[in-house]
Amino acid sequence: MTSTRPHPEDPAEQRLPYDAFARVCPSRGTLEHVTGRWGALTLGALCGGSLRFNELRRRVDGVSEKMLSQTLHALERDGLVHREAQPTNPPRVDYELTPLGHEVARHVLSLIRFLENSMDDVLRARESYDEARGAL
Amino acid sequence: MTSTRPHPEDPAEQRLPYDAFARVCPSRGTLEHVTGRWGALTLGALCGGSLRFNELRRRVDGVSEKMLSQTLHALERDGLVHREAQPTNPPRVDYELTPLGHEVARHVLSLIRFLENSMDDVLRARESYDEARGAL
Repeated sequence: MTSTRPHPEDPAEQRLPYDAFARVCPSRGTLEHVTGRWGALTLGALCGGSLRFNELRRRVDGVSEKMLSQTLHALERDGLVHREAQPTNPPRVDYELTPLGHEVARHVLSLIRFLENSMDDVLRARESYDEARGAL
Repeated sequence: MTSTRPHPEDPAEQRLPYDAFARVCPSRGTLEHVTGRWGALTLGALCGGSLRFNELRRRVDGVSEKMLSQTLHALERDGLVHREAQPTNPPRVDYELTPLGHEVARHVLSLIRFLENSMDDVLRARESYDEARGAL
């Protein structure tokens, strides 16, 4: 794996082997899977326990089948989500967080909750911003 | 502001007035500004103090001028970033986090650092996933 790390020869990078601020670092891709348009909400939704695809789709309000499927594949490939196909008829597929996924999801959910609790301030800021722009 | 809250009449929503999982909630937009492709890295970069546009662009490696500009506008409108134009010649514009932006950025940076530190596991998971797919 060492060869995929960015700038291993640069002493400034020795402190942290992976650096999401560097475009070549593989952590950039994972950051995007985890935070991207639907990644954060999918991880947050799975925090409460395993869900079937359609349950997830209802929880992550507004996501299309295609986008949820792509999001889950990326999170599964990164080892954050486990996909369990039950040998039933009709087939039943459950999605759940892996232990690593749980830790990532805790960070993501804490950000989501903080933003939700800050929305009064955010909406006030948007009003001031739009008023100032309108007055120009 | 109350009128913009989702389902204020639904008792299940009383607990948390804003809910990013609901597509009508304004916190959904802010979550996307904060986590979107460049939002997370821009907030993280500003955690260390104010930066000029070109300094930010170098720090958030790979971002285009247009995307950085759009990202900063959205974060400024949400009250997370403050834009300070200095009356110098040539004009100099500094960007810094607001107090609320600092708190959001702390959450975001903690997620970024956690992911960077988890990349060995993530890359191992990707290898297993790709091997299993290749073997099908």
